[in-house]
Amino acid sequence: MSPTTPLFVAFEGIDGCGKSTHAKRVAKAVDARFTFEPGDTPLGVMLRQRLLDASEPMSPQTEALLMLADRSHHVSTVITPTLAAGQSVVSDRYFGSTLAYQGYGREMDLAPLRAATDVAIGTCRPDLTIVIDIPVAVAHARRAPSQRDRFESATVDFHERVRQGFLSLAELEPNWIVINGNQNLEAVTERVDAALAAIGWFA
Amino acid sequence: MSPTTPLFVAFEGIDGCGKSTHAKRVAKAVDARFTFEPGDTPLGVMLRQRLLDASEPMSPQTEALLMLADRSHHVSTVITPTLAAGQSVVSDRYFGSTLAYQGYGREMDLAPLRAATDVAIGTCRPDLTIVIDIPVAVAHARRAPSQRDRFESATVDFHERVRQGFLSLAELEPNWIVINGNQNLEAVTERVDAALAAIGWFA
Repeated sequence: MSPTTPLFVAFEGIDGCGKSTHAKRVAKAVDARFTFEPGDTPLGVMLRQRLLDASEPMSPQTEALLMLADRSHHVSTVITPTLAAGQSVVSDRYFGSTLAYQGYGREMDLAPLRAATDVAIGTCRPDLTIVIDIPVAVAHARRAPSQRDRFESATVDFHERVRQGFLSLAELEPNWIVINGNQNLEAVTERVDAALAAIGWFA
Repeated sequence: MSPTTPLFVAFEGIDGCGKSTHAKRVAKAVDARFTFEPGDTPLGVMLRQRLLDASEPMSPQTEALLMLADRSHHVSTVITPTLAAGQSVVSDRYFGSTLAYQGYGREMDLAPLRAATDVAIGTCRPDLTIVIDIPVAVAHARRAPSQRDRFESATVDFHERVRQGFLSLAELEPNWIVINGNQNLEAVTERVDAALAAIGWFA
């Protein structure tokens, strides 16, 4: 792959795994656009607010469809135009999060959820998806209780299902890799950069 | 069907066809809950505002997924609980509107849109769907230009595709009927009430 071809890289994992730190660092290093889900568009700001508000009950189906609406708008107004303009994109979360959180975590049927995901993303698939994997207890200890939103306030069992979901997806999906996030920052950075070297970054 | 079984009836058609008038009249007459889409929940009010705002560009996919999120919340917090409590429901628009407007009108592929619709509605399907059909020019003449939202401000060709979409759906879907709305109110009322008599209302 030519070093001038814009690439799309997504970081996935449970909250507190460290993916945001690496996504931001990598985007800066390669002059890619850093972006995130949910909420990195004007419409998305409003959707994120409702999605994370633990005080407003909603079904897993509604949660999933709001996430997919946010993603669809993110794809059409941010990711696709940025790639078309020749700049790479690094996203903190992408379609894997909906399959992991609402599919594996909320236990929705995966087949219709994948079909609905296809409506949102079309052909816009990452060149590489990196899952930063850490035990739920380690992630949990990193978050202060006062910060917990709808997802952070869910049960440990839920987060275990989400974690296992990401690991299952990494086996099923093309261009996904898993990196152990439960080691020191330098070691994780080295593994992330090695994975990116394989697609032409830091090479 | 026992007259005490709660029923779910949906009215569909292009804007200005007269469906809201009949939906409200029928709901009142049979003591059903009148409801509508998009926007008949607290979350839906916000989604409707963004969906109808013609000044905010969004893709057909985003439009469809926001509509489906609204519908999913409508199903889980209004329609299903009302039916479960023994009261019938009459809705001004339901799943047919997404297939007609975003599928036929915006020309999205129908198969993934149907799959995403299934995520939103699950098994909650109307006992009867009544399409009030009128020519686009007649509907258009009923709306003042100052009232036109994202959909009302779309092209005549778009509304022609939506109208034909509703007619196609009526042939494909179980429990759909079409009533000619381009006649005087008494004649339309008589046809609507006859259709409802067949499911036990006004019988």
